[in-house]
This record gives sequence, C-alpha cells and structure tokens, in this order.
Amino acid sequence: MYGFSYEDRLKKCIELMQEAGLDVLLLGKPANMYYLTGDGRLCSYAMITRDGKVALGVPSTDVKDVSELALFDHITGFESEVGMIHSIAHYYKYFGITEGTVGLEYTFLTQAMMSMFTHPHGKPEGIAVKDCTPVMSALRIVKDDIEIRLMRQAAEVADIGMRAAVGAVKAGVTESQVAAEAEYAMRNAGAEGFWPTYVASGPRTNIAHGIPTKRRLTAGDLVMIDLHPIVGGYSSDICRTVCVGQPAEEQTRAYDLYLRAQQETILKVREGANIADLEKDMHRIFRDAGHGEHIFGPPIHGIGIEFEEAPLPPGHAFFHGEKGPGPLEANTVISVGNCGLYTGPWGVRVEDTVAVGKEGPLVLTNFPRDI
Amino acid sequence: MYGFSYEDRLKKCIELMQEAGLDVLLLGKPANMYYLTGDGRLCSYAMITRDGKVALGVPSTDVKDVSELALFDHITGFESEVGMIHSIAHYYKYFGITEGTVGLEYTFLTQAMMSMFTHPHGKPEGIAVKDCTPVMSALRIVKDDIEIRLMRQAAEVADIGMRAAVGAVKAGVTESQVAAEAEYAMRNAGAEGFWPTYVASGPRTNIAHGIPTKRRLTAGDLVMIDLHPIVGGYSSDICRTVCVGQPAEEQTRAYDLYLRAQQETILKVREGANIADLEKDMHRIFRDAGHGEHIFGPPIHGIGIEFEEAPLPPGHAFFHGEKGPGPLEANTVISVGNCGLYTGPWGVRVEDTVAVGKEGPLVLTNFPRDI
Repeated sequence: MYGFSYEDRLKKCIELMQEAGLDVLLLGKPANMYYLTGDGRLCSYAMITRDGKVALGVPSTDVKDVSELALFDHITGFESEVGMIHSIAHYYKYFGITEGTVGLEYTFLTQAMMSMFTHPHGKPEGIAVKDCTPVMSALRIVKDDIEIRLMRQAAEVADIGMRAAVGAVKAGVTESQVAAEAEYAMRNAGAEGFWPTYVASGPRTNIAHGIPTKRRLTAGDLVMIDLHPIVGGYSSDICRTVCVGQPAEEQTRAYDLYLRAQQETILKVREGANIADLEKDMHRIFRDAGHGEHIFGPPIHGIGIEFEEAPLPPGHAFFHGEKGPGPLEANTVISVGNCGLYTGPWGVRVEDTVAVGKEGPLVLTNFPRDI
Repeated sequence: MYGFSYEDRLKKCIELMQEAGLDVLLLGKPANMYYLTGDGRLCSYAMITRDGKVALGVPSTDVKDVSELALFDHITGFESEVGMIHSIAHYYKYFGITEGTVGLEYTFLTQAMMSMFTHPHGKPEGIAVKDCTPVMSALRIVKDDIEIRLMRQAAEVADIGMRAAVGAVKAGVTESQVAAEAEYAMRNAGAEGFWPTYVASGPRTNIAHGIPTKRRLTAGDLVMIDLHPIVGGYSSDICRTVCVGQPAEEQTRAYDLYLRAQQETILKVREGANIADLEKDMHRIFRDAGHGEHIFGPPIHGIGIEFEEAPLPPGHAFFHGEKGPGPLEANTVISVGNCGLYTGPWGVRVEDTVAVGKEGPLVLTNFPRDI
C-alpha cells in the first residue's frame, strides 16, 4: 500500500534501540514521529517500546485527525502540559516499564521540554535517560524508493521556485520580493510548505544565512537564492547565485571556480565515498586557486524529512551528539554546496540535492547553473 | 536616533540580572540578541556582563555585516563549533569572570546547544548555570513606541495578507494555494518574513496547528486562516474563519458565539487586567452556551519580536520556566483568540493582535470579522 511498511521501520528501530541499550523511546520531534507512524506534529509525543508497541499523545483537538493519518497501538488526547505529563506516566505504567533507559532527542528538546519529558510525575524513578539522536539518524539515513520519489518531486518544485526567483531578479526589486516569487511558485507547484527562504544580494552574499530584507537589487549585484520546498513531507535544497546585469570579471572567476569544485565533488558521490574526503577535496580546489581564506563551514549535509539531517558533516556531528559519518550508503541523499566562497565584499555559491547511487550521483535539482 | 536607546535596554537588563543573581548572560536566541544589540542571527552568541559590556561571536563570514547592524564592545568571528567554544572561553577570561552565575536560555537551547555553551573548554569551572528566560521576558514584555509602531505596521501587513487569502477562498482551490496568496501579498506589502502560515479547511479546522495541505476546498467548508508576518523584526498575529459559500446554521451560531466571546474579552484588555481572569471569562461564555467540551488551550499570549512571547498563559508559563503573568502592563501586546472552539467535525476561531492601553485595548489587526 505504501511501497514500504511501517512495521519494517519499527523493526529496524527496535534493533537499533537494542544496540544502543534503549528500552523505550519518547519522541517529540515531528520528523521522527512522522517517519515511524505517518504523522508528526508539534506539542505531541510518540512512545515506542522495545517490543514494538506505539503509543501517541496529541492535543485532544487533534485525536481524530491523527487517528486517520498515523499508525499506533494506543492514542490519547491531552488538554494541557500537565495532562501530557500524566499521559506519559500512564503509558509507562500500562506497558509495565518501571526500569531501564529511555531515549530522548537531545538535539531537539530544549531544557524546558526536557524537564517535561523527565518530570517526576511523568517518568518512573527507575528509568535512566539517554540521547537517542544517533538511533533516529541511523534509522532514517538510507531512503527507500518512495522517499527518493518524493525528494525528486521536491527537487522539481525547487527548480520551479528557482526559475521564478531568478526571473524576478532585476534592479529595483527587493530581496523580499524575489523570495515572494519563489515561495508563490513553489506552493503552486505542489509544495505544502518550505524551510526558510534565503535571498541575499550585494554585500549580503557574504553572510551565512541571508534572510531576505527590503534591500533593493542594484546593477552589478550578485544575488544568492537558497530554497527548500517540502513535498509529501520531504525536502530538497537548491542554491543559485546570479547577477543583476553583467558580473565583474573576478566575480565570474570565483563563481566558475566554485561551480567547478561543486561539480567535481558531485561526480565523486557514490556508495562508499567518504564525506570528510569529499569536503577536503572540494576545499583543496579553493585553496589551490588562492581562495583558502574564503572558505567557511562544511559544504555537505544530509537531507530528507528535514532539510539538514544525517549524514551531518564531521564537525557538526560531534556537537549534535553523533558520530562522524561513515562511508556513504546507497540511497542516502545529500546536499552539495552548503557553504560558499566568501571573499569579503561578496560571496558565490551553488548547491544541489544529490542522491547517492551505487555507481555514482543522481542529481535531483537541475535548474541551470549560470551566474 | 532610534527613538529608544540600547543603553537604556542594557541598563534595565543589568538591573534584572542583579535581581536574578546573574553575573553574566550568554545568549543564543536571535530575538534576545536583536533586542539588546540590534542584530540577532542563528549560530551566534552575545555575552552581556554585569558591568554592561557586550561581546558578540558570529560566523566569521558575518563579522562585517553584524558590525554594521549591531551595537557591541567586542566582536569575534569563528569558523566552527570548536572555534565558537574557544571564543566564549576567551571572553570569560578577557572580562575576568572566573566565578559567579551565567544565565542561559533554557527555553531556547537544546541539550546539544546546552552542552556547547557549558562545555568545559568554554565555561570556567567556577561558573554556575541558571535559566535566564524570566529575565529576558521581563526585559522585553513592555514595548516602547517604536516597537508598537512596527507592530502596527506588521498588523497592517497581516490585514493585507488576510484580504488576499480570503479572496482566494473558493471551491477547488487547495489550502496551500490560499497560503501562497497570503504569503505573496505579505511579502509584497513589506514583510521580511513570516512565522508558519496555517490554513485548515473542512474537518481540519478542528486541529490545533493547521499546516496547509493539498486538500481542495469544497462548498460548505469552513476555512481557518492564521497569519504571522514580520516587519522590522516585529510580528503580528491574525486568524479568521470563513466559509466556502453559505455556512450551516450551527456553524454560524458557533462562530457568532466565538466572535462575541473574543470581542468581549478584548474590551476588557487594559492596564491592570489579569490574563487568567480574561481567559476564565472567555471560557465561561463558551460553557454557558453549552460548548464547555469544545474548549482547548489558552486563548491569550503575548507577541512582539516572537509571535508567541511573554506574557505567556499561566499553564504554559510554568513549563517555560516562568512565573505566571502578573497584571497586564500598559504597552504590552497580546494576541486574543489563540485557541478556537473545536466541535469535532469543525472548529471556529477569530484572533487579533491587541496593544494594552492605560484605559482600554488598541486593536491592531482590523480585517473584517465575517464568517
């Protein structure tokens, strides 16, 4: 019916829980709940036991809606935070879990949410707490055919959004208006939403996260556009840099260098390749061309339900409570070109969503790569 | 120059730090950094000392951009998470802070970020850690004239977005397309961004957070539209419920009831009024009309840089590490109508952004309230 089975996902989840020494999971991150049950929303939780029982707690208003979307053994509605805590206590009791270890999402839970999920009125005293981020990442890292198909659709929508954005680029238009055109086109092409849109122009192309402003484009400006539509719960990621009119020669040179490095890196994407090596090779191209000082941040990250997920770059992974990524597995999906070349007065960047094939890359985003 | 002074904000911040027993703040939440320095962005931090020194750490790419936007005594760029931690250590040392208490944002920091901000390579051993959420809420809760003016602009943009959304409502259109029209109009009216747009139709009007889907509107559907544009860093919040064609009689009755309750509640908004009382009175109107079972969640919350901020409803406040709200102060801004009447097959809701005046309410969002 689905082209995959939630039972299989659950089975793999339980294997990973056992390896990690977890007896039960208490999930609050929509992406993780969505993957295991078919529904994920804020202010909700999913409890997964080591014998494969799934209990959901959601706002009482949402019980019917969730019932129609999610797979579960038990579902309960709560009216408030106190009700949420009591329903968690209830499920621990109902499943007979009085000791062992519960896995919580340390990279998602704020301190405030953490104190709810570990509140003495919720969690039995004999239950220890441990980070389950690596379990959920290992579970979700390799995509099945349906996931790849949805990401292909999300990539098509990204291409459509980029066409609209680039079409809107001209002197006098604001960054925010360029974003408006991209978002409007993406929604109408089938996106149910999008992660934050970045449009940065002129000197702002040098910054890491270019939230659109009312800055008006001027002749000669570079414009960096970064889009992340969501289709059927799955994301894609595309970035293009274009120029209002003719780019300066040194801008073209830097752009061509970046594009060459990005494309050479993509060509090396295949099963067994190592992200750390890909990053090192890409950075070496910049350094060899005299741009060693203009590199910032990791150029590759995984993508799926979230627009940044495992495999995370080695530096990030450590602080996200994860091991550095191993060799790429087939049907992992990554984004190549996450960080640009930042020269000071301006920056250039090209990013594409790429599925890892057994023999090579499958590039999902295809909008032309012309400055 | 600004109509307010960052020095005054800093002075008040330091008073609140002293009351709370905090010697230094280490902020990572963009809204808090923005309020105190004029710039707030992801992957950055601001350290505020009790003698009023401000140090910023930002991605090295962003140093120039931040320098132009933010007020600070010291600024540093880092290349990676490790660099970030070392720069924090540097500032503790530079400011001679070896013991005392640092305030961290427990309602913002995930476990993973918490371990960065308290990493032994960053934080001196003699420094204890405490939640600074109540300090930052008390600091930001009363808005100055410039803030009210920006929120008034954000409210005008919300009205424009709602006009576009309601204009798009007809049979055959998807929820996502309605969202597209609203977002496009808001960006073009001057929004630099927006918090998630909710469009829920038919049975989906009964759920708490109606993320737009590809569901097509059908004659007789109720459609709940909730918009939150951002203008100049400040947010507004508006919700309207409309019908595709003619609403059923019981839908009109429930809608009229909700609107009456919301409007009566707004009329009671003034300096000294108590949120808990306002909520109780609003809920009593529903109960008296036989809808006691259809109430969910708190109807009022504060709004400002964030679309949900202090004053938080009493239930939420506890779990956000805050005291329940005191009597409303003049120039606090709240949103009235945050949760609807959820009958099961459908729900109704009307929400407006309201500034608290000395003598009464100043309603900022004004789009017509017709089902």
